[in-house]
Amino acid sequence: MKNYKSADLRSVRLCDPVFMPRIKLAMGPMLKAVTEQTESTGRIGAFDLNWKEGAPFKPHVFWDSDVAKVLEGMAYILGLENIPELEKLYDSWVERIVAAQQPDGYLNVYFTVVEPENRFKYLNWAHELYCAGHLIEAAVAGFEVLGKRKLLDAMCRYADYLDAVFGLEPGKRRGWPGHQELELALIRLYRVTGEKRYLRLAAYFINDRGTEPNVFAAEGNSFSDLVVRQAHIPIREMQEVSGHAVRALYMCSGAADVAFETEDKELFSVCEKLFENVAERRSYITGGVGSTPVGEAVTADWDLPESTAYAESCAAIAFAFFASRMLNYTGDIKYAELLERVLYNNCMSGVGNSGDEFFYANPLQMLNTKNHSQVLNPGQKGVRQKWFSCSCCPTNYIRFLPKLGSFIWSFDERSAVLHIPAAGEISTEKFGAVVSGSYPAEGRITVTMTKNSLLAFRLRIPLWAEKFSLKVRGENVVCNAGYVDLPGPWQTGDKVELDIEIKAHLVFPRAEVADSAGRAAIMRGPLVYALESVDNPLNLHGCRIFSDTEFSEVSLPAELDSVLPGVAFEAEYRNSEEESPLYSSVAPKWKKGGFMAIPYYLWQNRGESDMRIFIPFV
Amino acid sequence: MKNYKSADLRSVRLCDPVFMPRIKLAMGPMLKAVTEQTESTGRIGAFDLNWKEGAPFKPHVFWDSDVAKVLEGMAYILGLENIPELEKLYDSWVERIVAAQQPDGYLNVYFTVVEPENRFKYLNWAHELYCAGHLIEAAVAGFEVLGKRKLLDAMCRYADYLDAVFGLEPGKRRGWPGHQELELALIRLYRVTGEKRYLRLAAYFINDRGTEPNVFAAEGNSFSDLVVRQAHIPIREMQEVSGHAVRALYMCSGAADVAFETEDKELFSVCEKLFENVAERRSYITGGVGSTPVGEAVTADWDLPESTAYAESCAAIAFAFFASRMLNYTGDIKYAELLERVLYNNCMSGVGNSGDEFFYANPLQMLNTKNHSQVLNPGQKGVRQKWFSCSCCPTNYIRFLPKLGSFIWSFDERSAVLHIPAAGEISTEKFGAVVSGSYPAEGRITVTMTKNSLLAFRLRIPLWAEKFSLKVRGENVVCNAGYVDLPGPWQTGDKVELDIEIKAHLVFPRAEVADSAGRAAIMRGPLVYALESVDNPLNLHGCRIFSDTEFSEVSLPAELDSVLPGVAFEAEYRNSEEESPLYSSVAPKWKKGGFMAIPYYLWQNRGESDMRIFIPFV
Repeated sequence: MKNYKSADLRSVRLCDPVFMPRIKLAMGPMLKAVTEQTESTGRIGAFDLNWKEGAPFKPHVFWDSDVAKVLEGMAYILGLENIPELEKLYDSWVERIVAAQQPDGYLNVYFTVVEPENRFKYLNWAHELYCAGHLIEAAVAGFEVLGKRKLLDAMCRYADYLDAVFGLEPGKRRGWPGHQELELALIRLYRVTGEKRYLRLAAYFINDRGTEPNVFAAEGNSFSDLVVRQAHIPIREMQEVSGHAVRALYMCSGAADVAFETEDKELFSVCEKLFENVAERRSYITGGVGSTPVGEAVTADWDLPESTAYAESCAAIAFAFFASRMLNYTGDIKYAELLERVLYNNCMSGVGNSGDEFFYANPLQMLNTKNHSQVLNPGQKGVRQKWFSCSCCPTNYIRFLPKLGSFIWSFDERSAVLHIPAAGEISTEKFGAVVSGSYPAEGRITVTMTKNSLLAFRLRIPLWAEKFSLKVRGENVVCNAGYVDLPGPWQTGDKVELDIEIKAHLVFPRAEVADSAGRAAIMRGPLVYALESVDNPLNLHGCRIFSDTEFSEVSLPAELDSVLPGVAFEAEYRNSEEESPLYSSVAPKWKKGGFMAIPYYLWQNRGESDMRIFIPFV
Repeated sequence: MKNYKSADLRSVRLCDPVFMPRIKLAMGPMLKAVTEQTESTGRIGAFDLNWKEGAPFKPHVFWDSDVAKVLEGMAYILGLENIPELEKLYDSWVERIVAAQQPDGYLNVYFTVVEPENRFKYLNWAHELYCAGHLIEAAVAGFEVLGKRKLLDAMCRYADYLDAVFGLEPGKRRGWPGHQELELALIRLYRVTGEKRYLRLAAYFINDRGTEPNVFAAEGNSFSDLVVRQAHIPIREMQEVSGHAVRALYMCSGAADVAFETEDKELFSVCEKLFENVAERRSYITGGVGSTPVGEAVTADWDLPESTAYAESCAAIAFAFFASRMLNYTGDIKYAELLERVLYNNCMSGVGNSGDEFFYANPLQMLNTKNHSQVLNPGQKGVRQKWFSCSCCPTNYIRFLPKLGSFIWSFDERSAVLHIPAAGEISTEKFGAVVSGSYPAEGRITVTMTKNSLLAFRLRIPLWAEKFSLKVRGENVVCNAGYVDLPGPWQTGDKVELDIEIKAHLVFPRAEVADSAGRAAIMRGPLVYALESVDNPLNLHGCRIFSDTEFSEVSLPAELDSVLPGVAFEAEYRNSEEESPLYSSVAPKWKKGGFMAIPYYLWQNRGESDMRIFIPFV
C-alpha cells in the first residue's frame, strides 16, 4: 500500500492544451451558467423552505445535491482565483443552506417542506443521503480551500445526527443511501475533523449494504432495483461492477477510502477486483462506463454497444475518482493509465467548447439524423444541452474541472509523483517544478525544478509509450515505461527531460467485444480520435481502414481552437446507390478517399454532426 | 388499387417445414400455456368483477386485451380443428366476458372495478380503447370462424356505445386510443356487420388523432408521450414511422383499412409513404421494427443497432398485418417481399420450439454473458420466457400463428394469388390446389390444381430469386421475377412448376446503417441466418467472412427438428490472448476456421448461447 495524497488544487497551475481550457471554461461561462440555472430553477431558493403545495418551483428530491455541487465548485474556483463577488455569493448560499437546517441537525429541503412525514422512509429512491453527502463535500471543500467553518460546522451537526440514526448499535436503525455518495463524503469529513464516528458511519454504509435482511427489499423494491443500487448482495460478495454506473463507481470510491482508512485488506482487494472488472471488461475506450440508458447502467462483461452507449459524464468523473484513489493507495501504474484515459476522453467530452453546454450521455457513434429528443432517454441527445431536469452532469463538472490539477500530482512524505505530464507549475512547501511542453499535443516534456527539494521525484512514463527517451540533469537514463523513481535531492534548475513518441495508431478491442467486431479505433497518446461528418464529406459510416494505414498529422480546424493535431489518412469507403434497398445482395463498391479524425472530446462543437470512433478495418 | 382478400384460414392447410410446425405449437403447448396463464394470473377471473382493494390479482389496464387475444386464438384454432373441449372453454370465457358488460354497453374490467370514476379520463395510458379493440377482434373471429354471435352482439353494443361517446358530432367528445388497435378492429366489425357507423368511428380515430387541440396534451402528457403514441401530428402530416413500434404499425394497418374502405386516396398515399419509410429505412433484416427499449420505439432513419435492437415480437406481427393489408389493396409485390421476410424471420423467432416460451424483444446479436434480467427492460432477455407481466407477445402469437395460412393466399373475384409457395392445400368454392415442395428448404414447388376453376392463378416469383424456371401445364414459360398471371380455366390435375434456385449468399445493409458498418448477413431465400455459439466452438464474435465466400449446405443439428439446411463456410477468426487488455494496439492475429449458420428464427432452442447475424466482411 501507498499513502499518496492528491495535490492540493491550489498548488497546481496548469497551462496545457487540454485541461487548462476546460478549467478556464469552468471558471467563466460554466460557473455563470450553472449558478444562474441553480437560481432560476428555484434550487437555491428552495432552501428558504417557503414552498407551499400548488406553488411553482416544487422542490425535487435531488435539488439539494445540485446546489451543493455548485457550491463545492465555487470553493475550488475561489481556491484558484480570488473573486470577491463569487466569495460573497458563496457566503450567501451558505447562509441560506445553514438556515434550512432543522434543530436536530437534519437538512433536506424536499423532506422538510414537501414530505416531512416521510423522512428516511424511502431511502431507495429519496436521494436524501445522497444530498447529505454532497452537502458534506461542499462543506469540506469550503473548509479545505477557504478555511470557512460555517457550513462545515453545520454539516458536522448533520453527520452527528445521521450517525445517531443509522447503524447497527442499539437505538439505531439500519439504512443505506439509495444513491451512494455519502460514504466518500463522510471520509472527507473524517479527514478534516478527525472525528472517527464519521469514518465508522462510512464503513457501516459500505459494509452493511446488501446484507440480509435487505433494507431496500423491505421497502418493497424489486431485485432489479436492488441491482441498480448495488444493494442486491454485500460488496464483499461482488465479482463485478453492475447496476447504475455512477452509484457503482461512487460506492467503489467510498469503499476504497474505507478500506484504506480502516486497513481492511479484504475490502481493499474487493476494490481491486471491481476495478479490474470495470476497467478490463465493462468500460469504453473513452473511459466511459454504462452500456444502456435503461437504469443508466453497466450491463455485463464485453457488452459495449457503440451508438447506444450511455457513458454518462458523471460516471466518467466517478471513474476518475475511483482510479485516482486506487492510484494513491497503491501507486500501481495501471490505475494511472486508466485515469489518464478517462480524463482525456469521456471526462472532457461532456462539456462543449462554449463551457455552458453538456452531454449527459457520451455515445461512441452518432447518426445525426436521429431525432433523439423524441424517443430516447432525455440524457441521450446528439447535441450538448444547457441544462437537464436531472442536472447532475453540469453540476458535477463545476466541482470536477477546477480540481483537474490535483489529479496530476500526488505526494507522500518522501516523494512527489507526476502521473500525467500536463504543462504547468506545482508549488508546495517541500517541492516545486515547472512542467513545460504541450502534452499530449506532443511528447517532449521538461520538468524544471523551481525549489531545492529532498523529495524523490517519481515520474510516470505511460505504458502505451513504445518509444521514449529520458534525461535527468542532462544525463541519459535507460529504463522501462512505468513509474521511474528519481531520487533527490533536487536543486533549483535541475531538469528532467522526457521525450515520448506520440503517434496515431489503431487500437483493437478484445475479440469478445461483440458490438465492435471487425472494428478498430484511432488513438494518439491518451487521446481517442473520432471521425466527424463536418470534417469528412465522404460517408464516414461507410469508411473502412487498412490495418497498416499510415497516419499523418494535420492542424485542427480553427474553430476548435486547439493546438492538438488532427489525424489524416487514406481509406476505402462506400456509398449506397440512390435506389439501393435497405438490404441488398449486391456487394458494395469501394472507393478510395481521404478522412480526418479529431480528438473525440472535441466532437460536436461545430453543430450537429455524425460521428464514429470504431472503424471497420481490413 | 386491388381488392384482394386474404384467404379464410379454414381454407388453407399447410404442411411446410416452417409455418406448419409453428401452427402445431400454437394448437398444442402454446394454447395450453397461454390459457393456463390467463386463468392462473387472474386475467379471466377478473371479468367476474369481484376484485376488492387489498385482494390479490388486482386487474391491470391491459388484462382484458390478453384475454381477448387468447379468445381470438381459440376461435382460429377451432376453425382449424374441431376440439369440443376447447369450444366449451371458449363459450365459458365468452359468458364471463359478456356478463361483465355494463348496462350502457361499456366493457372494461379495470375501469369497472378499480377506477370506475375514471372511465375515459386517461386515454393516453389507460389502454381502455385498446382493450375494446381486442375484444371486438375476438368477437369478429368467433363469428367469422365459428358463426358465434353472443360476443359479437355484445361488442356491437359496446361499439355503439363508443360511437355515441367519441367523435366530432354535437354531444360527442373527442378522444383517441392511447394504444391503437381499435381502429382496425372496428373495420373488421364493420365488414361483418355492414354497420357504417363502425367504419366512420374508425375513420374518426385515424383522422382526428394528432389534430389540435391535442387530446393527449390536454391530459397533461409531454411531447415525447405524444410521439410515442403517434399523436404529435395528424397522420396525414407524417413523413415517417416513429414512436412505439406496435402502436405505429397497428395505426398504419387501421389507416390502410380506413383509406381503402372510404376510398381516401390521400390517406392511402400516406400509408404507402409510411410503409416505404419503415421498410426501407427503419426495419431490420429480420423484418423487426423498434430500435430501442426506451419507449419500445422506432427511432430514426438507418438507426438499427444490432445487440440493443428491440424488434418486439408484436411489432413483427403488426408489420405483417400492415404489409398484408397493403398487398391486398395494391397487389404490389414489394409488400409481399417484406411480408415474406418478416413472416420467416422475426415473426417466427419470437416462439421457441417448445411452443410455450417467447421472446418479447428479438435482438440481432447476443452476448450470452449479458445478465439481461438484472438491468435491461424486462422484455429484453437472452432466453425466451414463459410469460411476461406485460404479456402482449404470447397472447399475440396465439391469435397470429393459426392464421398463417391466410397470409399465403389472397383472392379476388377473378383470381387466386399465391404470395408465398409454402407447401399445403387450398380449397375454396371456386378454387383448389395442392402446393408441394418444402419451400424454403428448397425451391422446387409444384402447384397441382384440385378443382376445375375459372379463376386466373397469380403466382409470386420472389424478387430475390436470381435464377428460376417456370413450367405451366408442362410448358416452359419465360418471365421476369414478380407476380406472374396465369389465366384460367384450370382443370383438376393441371400443374404449375416453379423451380427457384435458393442458395446462401451475403446481404449488405445500406452504407448509411452506421451500426452495421463493415458487416454483412447471410440469407438463403427469405431466411436470415445466424451464427450461434452452440454450433460454433470458434469465437463467433471474432469471425470475419470473405465477400466471395462459398457456402455449403449441411443438415441442421437433430435437436432443431427441421429439414431446413444449415449453412457452412470457411472464414477467418480471432481470439484474444488471455492477458490482452480490453483495448490493445497489437493488431489481431487471424486464423482460418469453419463456421455454421442456422436460420435465425431457430436460435436459442438449445440453451443460452451467443448469436450474431451481421459478420464483418473483407
